[in-house]
Amino acid sequence: MTDFHAVIPAGGAGTRLWPLSRAQRPKFLLDLTGDGRSLIQQTWDRLLQVIPADHIHVVSGPAHAPLIQEQLPELTNLYAEPAPRDSMAAIGMAAAIIGQRDPDAVIGSFAADQTIADTGAFVAAVHEAKQVADTGLICTLGITPRGPSTAFGYIEAGDPLPDTISARAIAQFVEKPDLPTAEQYVAGGSHYWNAGMFITRADVLLGHLERLHPELHAGLAAIGQAWDTPERQATLESAWPGLTKIAIDHAIAEPVSLEGGMAVVPGNFGWDDIGDFAALSELAGASQASDNTIWIDSDGLAIADDGTMIAVIGVPDAVVVRTRDALLVTTREHAQRVKEVPESLKQRGRTDLV
Amino acid sequence: MTDFHAVIPAGGAGTRLWPLSRAQRPKFLLDLTGDGRSLIQQTWDRLLQVIPADHIHVVSGPAHAPLIQEQLPELTNLYAEPAPRDSMAAIGMAAAIIGQRDPDAVIGSFAADQTIADTGAFVAAVHEAKQVADTGLICTLGITPRGPSTAFGYIEAGDPLPDTISARAIAQFVEKPDLPTAEQYVAGGSHYWNAGMFITRADVLLGHLERLHPELHAGLAAIGQAWDTPERQATLESAWPGLTKIAIDHAIAEPVSLEGGMAVVPGNFGWDDIGDFAALSELAGASQASDNTIWIDSDGLAIADDGTMIAVIGVPDAVVVRTRDALLVTTREHAQRVKEVPESLKQRGRTDLV
Repeated sequence: MTDFHAVIPAGGAGTRLWPLSRAQRPKFLLDLTGDGRSLIQQTWDRLLQVIPADHIHVVSGPAHAPLIQEQLPELTNLYAEPAPRDSMAAIGMAAAIIGQRDPDAVIGSFAADQTIADTGAFVAAVHEAKQVADTGLICTLGITPRGPSTAFGYIEAGDPLPDTISARAIAQFVEKPDLPTAEQYVAGGSHYWNAGMFITRADVLLGHLERLHPELHAGLAAIGQAWDTPERQATLESAWPGLTKIAIDHAIAEPVSLEGGMAVVPGNFGWDDIGDFAALSELAGASQASDNTIWIDSDGLAIADDGTMIAVIGVPDAVVVRTRDALLVTTREHAQRVKEVPESLKQRGRTDLV
Repeated sequence: MTDFHAVIPAGGAGTRLWPLSRAQRPKFLLDLTGDGRSLIQQTWDRLLQVIPADHIHVVSGPAHAPLIQEQLPELTNLYAEPAPRDSMAAIGMAAAIIGQRDPDAVIGSFAADQTIADTGAFVAAVHEAKQVADTGLICTLGITPRGPSTAFGYIEAGDPLPDTISARAIAQFVEKPDLPTAEQYVAGGSHYWNAGMFITRADVLLGHLERLHPELHAGLAAIGQAWDTPERQATLESAWPGLTKIAIDHAIAEPVSLEGGMAVVPGNFGWDDIGDFAALSELAGASQASDNTIWIDSDGLAIADDGTMIAVIGVPDAVVVRTRDALLVTTREHAQRVKEVPESLKQRGRTDLV
């Protein structure tokens, strides 16, 4: 795996996890699982099972770069984007930089804010995906659905790939389905959750990009060529603002899958993206028998980031989250609506709490 | 009113108002109405409309005496009970001390933790009750019911008293009723809430006590005689532990009412005892449009004693109370169960939060 590199795009505020997550302290910097390691640190730890530290690359906004460096002191490849340009620019920039240094490089992109329970199974899946990517396909890890979730897009798998353990061609990517559709997907056994993990040769990715989005490719290629020269900053500042804002799913994965250029390796390694407090509540599970919570005719999730005593009476499925400067009270049913709170705070001019 | 004295028994933890009220910071020391004055300070302010400061007497436990003195710097008559002996001993001791100093004294007892919206109407009722008490009756202020509450005992009024504005004899005291009974009481128009306010000549009260509870009377009389002598502390320590623990309602009001010795002056002055957060929620009313609360598909009461932002989503009739060291989440429906929390905390050994 000497030619394998991991790219961690560290973006997204996670406004559905307010008041834990904030603009300046996004989800990936939080220790949501209570393990003593933030989500990006857990991602880092996991990737070290695959490659050495100097093969891990993080792309973030300038505001978060210092906090990421603090949490990951051994990280040497930290790229701060001048402004957010969505995942294609983030991953494409890393691919251009890495590809410039190592033309044979294979890169894997792994979100900074997901959890994986079974690292061994994850590592095995990455190894298989790397072998598939070596053949020139873009390979994704498809998560075996634990249920008919309507919160994720799905990957529809096609025929098995020859000479692989479990890889299959991708028939198509499908958007977040409604519940009946999701139930059909789960029953059918050929659909996987799209967790946004792509493994591909850098030159293959950049080749598709050049073909499908030539202007975006030109900007990223210029940045990649200039990165390890004195022209880095000047090129970044001149090229970055003009880059098209587009997700890698729309820019590459969807069109290339229709051309037969993509594959999926199914993964069943306890993946979660902790999209809201309902998901966190499920993940937290047994930890709810906390010494610092009194449940009377109630259950759910209660978090006080300073260990304050919380008493909940007569509120089933409660979600109670207390931080130093804010408090959220809701129920699992309304977990998705938490993102309305930061919006409301902005309208009130309370950006200090967003 | 030169012979009128007010006695404020300042007891009761108010465990249904946890985490605002605590053993060491009981309800009467709290500014629950947001007026900048605690309930005992409001009681003090109100009584100053009737009598001068040196006619106000407070009976409390030793733990609370310093805090009371701090909140009421002009209070000169503060009596610390060595241990709780219920309201008969508290009021009886004050009556014995006051009666020793002024044999013609009339005393009125007023709880430390009640609110009254219309002070003028309260003062008028006290004046009338004082006139009734001068005749040798024990007079209570009966609160005109705002609804068929099952949280209070009721006073059943009998015939009007001659030569008074509104006073009536008391037929009987009745315990907290069930809802149909309470509805009958309210419809009938002759029942009042018992707010525990008694106005009586000190010698009349002590005379009844001597007759009905001679041992308790003897102990209190000894304390009263010794109070303004060097024997105060020794007498208090020897007599107090043996005093019967009984409420003034059972010791005096109920038996004397059956003998025809009690009267009631109806009062309609916006009285409340803020027994739980449901009551406080009702009282707070308009204050719920706080800058520091975001209600999304929710309403109710949200308090953060440090002004922290609170967001509530999808919880109608919510009760959310945040203090520095604790947090309560419940609904108005379960307000009475809040007292279970301090019990649970004691069982967990968290007496620091009780």
